[in-house]
Amino acid sequence: MPNVYDVTNWTIAANPSVTAYSDIGAIINDIIATIKTNQTNQSSKPGAMIYIPPGDYSLKTRVTIDISYLQIKGSGHGFTSIGIRNGAGNTSSWFELNPGASHIRVENTDGQAEAFLVSRGGNPRLSSVEFRDFCLDGVSFSSPYVNGKVGIRVATANDSFRIEGMGFVFLEHALIDYNADALNVTGNFMTECGSCVELTGSGQASKVTNNHMGAGYIGFSIFAEGHTGLLIAGNNIFPAGASMVHFKNTSQSCITENRFNSYYPGSINTEGSNNENLISGNHFWRQSDPNTSHPSQPGWDELYGEMFLLGSNNMISGNHISYDVDPSRVTPSTSTVPTMILVKSGANNFISNNHVEGSVAVNTVVLDVSTTGTKVLDSGSSSQVLSYSSSYTLRPTP
Amino acid sequence: MPNVYDVTNWTIAANPSVTAYSDIGAIINDIIATIKTNQTNQSSKPGAMIYIPPGDYSLKTRVTIDISYLQIKGSGHGFTSIGIRNGAGNTSSWFELNPGASHIRVENTDGQAEAFLVSRGGNPRLSSVEFRDFCLDGVSFSSPYVNGKVGIRVATANDSFRIEGMGFVFLEHALIDYNADALNVTGNFMTECGSCVELTGSGQASKVTNNHMGAGYIGFSIFAEGHTGLLIAGNNIFPAGASMVHFKNTSQSCITENRFNSYYPGSINTEGSNNENLISGNHFWRQSDPNTSHPSQPGWDELYGEMFLLGSNNMISGNHISYDVDPSRVTPSTSTVPTMILVKSGANNFISNNHVEGSVAVNTVVLDVSTTGTKVLDSGSSSQVLSYSSSYTLRPTP
Amino acid sequence: MPNVYDVTNWTIAANPSVTAYSDIGAIINDIIATIKTNQTNQSSKPGAMIYIPPGDYSLKTRVTIDISYLQIKGSGHGFTSIGIRNGAGNTSSWFELNPGASHIRVENTDGQAEAFLVSRGGNPRLSSVEFRDFCLDGVSFSSPYVNGKVGIRVATANDSFRIEGMGFVFLEHALIDYNADALNVTGNFMTECGSCVELTGSGQASKVTNNHMGAGYIGFSIFAEGHTGLLIAGNNIFPAGASMVHFKNTSQSCITENRFNSYYPGSINTEGSNNENLISGNHFWRQSDPNTSHPSQPGWDELYGEMFLLGSNNMISGNHISYDVDPSRVTPSTSTVPTMILVKSGANNFISNNHVEGSVAVNTVVLDVSTTGTKVLDSGSSSQVLSYSSSYTLRPTP
Repeated sequence: MPNVYDVTNWTIAANPSVTAYSDIGAIINDIIATIKTNQTNQSSKPGAMIYIPPGDYSLKTRVTIDISYLQIKGSGHGFTSIGIRNGAGNTSSWFELNPGASHIRVENTDGQAEAFLVSRGGNPRLSSVEFRDFCLDGVSFSSPYVNGKVGIRVATANDSFRIEGMGFVFLEHALIDYNADALNVTGNFMTECGSCVELTGSGQASKVTNNHMGAGYIGFSIFAEGHTGLLIAGNNIFPAGASMVHFKNTSQSCITENRFNSYYPGSINTEGSNNENLISGNHFWRQSDPNTSHPSQPGWDELYGEMFLLGSNNMISGNHISYDVDPSRVTPSTSTVPTMILVKSGANNFISNNHVEGSVAVNTVVLDVSTTGTKVLDSGSSSQVLSYSSSYTLRPTP
Repeated sequence: MPNVYDVTNWTIAANPSVTAYSDIGAIINDIIATIKTNQTNQSSKPGAMIYIPPGDYSLKTRVTIDISYLQIKGSGHGFTSIGIRNGAGNTSSWFELNPGASHIRVENTDGQAEAFLVSRGGNPRLSSVEFRDFCLDGVSFSSPYVNGKVGIRVATANDSFRIEGMGFVFLEHALIDYNADALNVTGNFMTECGSCVELTGSGQASKVTNNHMGAGYIGFSIFAEGHTGLLIAGNNIFPAGASMVHFKNTSQSCITENRFNSYYPGSINTEGSNNENLISGNHFWRQSDPNTSHPSQPGWDELYGEMFLLGSNNMISGNHISYDVDPSRVTPSTSTVPTMILVKSGANNFISNNHVEGSVAVNTVVLDVSTTGTKVLDSGSSSQVLSYSSSYTLRPTP
Repeated sequence: MPNVYDVTNWTIAANPSVTAYSDIGAIINDIIATIKTNQTNQSSKPGAMIYIPPGDYSLKTRVTIDISYLQIKGSGHGFTSIGIRNGAGNTSSWFELNPGASHIRVENTDGQAEAFLVSRGGNPRLSSVEFRDFCLDGVSFSSPYVNGKVGIRVATANDSFRIEGMGFVFLEHALIDYNADALNVTGNFMTECGSCVELTGSGQASKVTNNHMGAGYIGFSIFAEGHTGLLIAGNNIFPAGASMVHFKNTSQSCITENRFNSYYPGSINTEGSNNENLISGNHFWRQSDPNTSHPSQPGWDELYGEMFLLGSNNMISGNHISYDVDPSRVTPSTSTVPTMILVKSGANNFISNNHVEGSVAVNTVVLDVSTTGTKVLDSGSSSQVLSYSSSYTLRPTP
């Protein structure tokens, strides 16, 4: 079939001993070079599909994608828990030890961090590159969640990309996308990674939906910088993750209908100025990290807030928070009254109809002295809402 | 391509007369046996993809899957309504009579109930088995929704499975999954089945999202037992279904943004103890079963509640209920005032901002005498909220 | 493989000079004719899969699909912004100029409007036709968003269709589906089209979920007529679009958890009678059209309402509206106080817990004199809610 490539039957003319099994990165780079040689007409560059059949492949050389419309596709996300295996002791009787399906071991020997780098200067932006249904496996960490490995880094402005059905495991960074427009991250399995989805630079109109995720205890499940119109919906995000969602100067975006299970304060975290966002219909289940050797985030004790908000005109509504922390683990002291929603700055935030169930007494909402015009409706009793500002409106939950 | 199999060109060496058309179960079992013969290295068992091209296949022998990373994939869910056909009278002029696409007729002659059984003892759990884009058709019922047939039964603990884009029709049980971790059930078409999704035993962090479903009048659309962190979101569930979602000892889970159309009380049903769940943003449209010969559920009259809740600290918020039952069909008597939300037990449930539109006068919320600390806000007028307990807080809808 | 066809290796016996590149429509029609010749047994018509490899194909002849269970599938939605290219001036240095992946240029020379027409009379309805992962490109407009081209028109009653992962660009109408039952429109990229999804006639139990969309300034992003049980959830819809969602006599449906970015009033628009719908958890970001040459919709000034509602017993709850219109662009005069939610008719609508942030003073809710029994709770201050009817209940946001 034209423009359809199978990595397992490709040979690099200049280096015929390389196979997809010995270095799938070199193979894919050679296929891309061939596509570019074949598609030289500016008006007709449809790209290609590169298929990765089920198998165990080593990636020694970073792939660089600088063409639009390339779909790289496997036949399964192939996740298995390396963490459970590593903690299991004697595994000599185990049926299998490693992830599988269309399974790429990220083992760069080229000095590069990335398995896949997507990058092109000039015009237009790269469009419609698709990664689908294969597994990127970082194999091992040098220390927890640290190995310098990046599954996919999109380094230049991009439009209408699609990351779907992928598996990511044991990578320090699963997916980094810089300046994404109308990105779609859907149906992926991204766990046991340092960070899962990092949207850097700026971006608009993107979606992170219907994924399973779980980052390391020092990383982000979802990070977004300078975005507007981002929709984060319908994800099932489990521990650890220093935060579940971290917004940096991100506005007019949605965090809706997700299920969050976290071990630390700052499940929803912000930095900079984040305005007019909607955080609604989510379920938060906060527990204690069962691994007590993990550090707390710097300075984040239980006063930091399950949600920590910097910005104005945000709406936080219809969320359920189960705060289920062992009283002996509450910091800075066991007599601390933990904070659920901390509005640290900003004007006219609207907090309504949130329900909290706590293993200890909590402050459902705390307003910093710098805040103005916050409305707090049906989100805690009078004694559960604490304001250091005189500029706010409270209708306590009766 | 390595590890890619097409059921239509596979021959069983010991039994060469069998084809995928005569017994696709025997064919797939033989392919699995071959995969296991080929993949004996504990460190490298990537599994395989088995492709089912469009066609009509008979399954006479149950498939047993005991390897991870197996993807079985077709080219279409192939649903058509057998129910409409069966009720149509003379169909001699019809273009087609049966489901299609990658279409498996479940016709076990091996004494087994299941088309696919996924089961393996020992370690690790099976991971990342995927069923995608084919049709499992139970062909006929012996009596309504009864034929003993199971489309897929996962019988041992499992991780990161994926059921996507499948069609299930005329099976007594479409999908049963025991002890599921991070299961993904997305984009399926599961209708005219006794029950659709049954998550048994226990489980965590699973998703049932973006499906079309409709169970039989004595079955479950979605059943979950012993789960935590289950996200049921964005599904369009139509009648019948004795219940739309049935939780048994399931907690910290979400039923959000679904569209439910039901014929019976107990659209959301619970048994055991179910705590800290979020039921929000759903649309309930309750009608009368047009087929008056269907039995009511045992003892479930219109006092049972559209939602029947056993448990504590649940949040029920932002739901719309259209109660559209013919007054003459209200039970136990036509003077009964139907119940929308019945809190049968538990403490500190939070019921807020629900809207009910009724064809007859209704009680929007009823609190059992055993309940304590329920808060009912903006979910009905004073006359619509009925409490047999003295321990509750009411802010009636003004 | 049986019933699997590749458009690039098909030859029309009667016209062997035609290729998929010269007229993919004629090729697919001939494949369909062959499928019908091969599948004549009423009991066994599984249909087929037609694969479109990445490539640039011209469609000169409309495809007519009159068989069930046909899946037409490519390897990528292939979108790029033709609008940006057209506005870019000298593109001689551009890497590529056109959409790609499995890319069909809709260039009918047969006098027909449609690239794909799906139509069959008689019984049963067509079932389970699937369009997946290819690009339909209308190439150019004669005037903005006008070229008479239709990507896919389903013209007869249909069941369980699936439109997934498709790209649509520069079509006057991307997808029109008449009398849809249990339709699934998921994961598509539909932009720079006159209108995106138009569900005409009547229909039930359909889903439009997890899509990227953006219609032209005179078209619909989503239009639904005579539907019940429609679930519109998790979409990211960007400008322009005369409306984001337009309901005509559509009831018991959901518009939930979407992200809407619009340039005009009437983001949610209705005509006829629309009842018992749930509009919740959405984020509305209303801006001014940066292109001031675009006409306003006829008669729709800023008093029309971001949401314009005709009907009864609807619930509008938990929405965030960012009204971010340059004060100098407010019509009919810059002193006009814009309307966010206009209830133009109907009884017993329920409007609760909505938050508005405005660049100018706004009326959050306006009730027409004809309306009765509307409840407005926590959706604006006393001065922001304006009623011309005496039949309503207001609990202003404190």
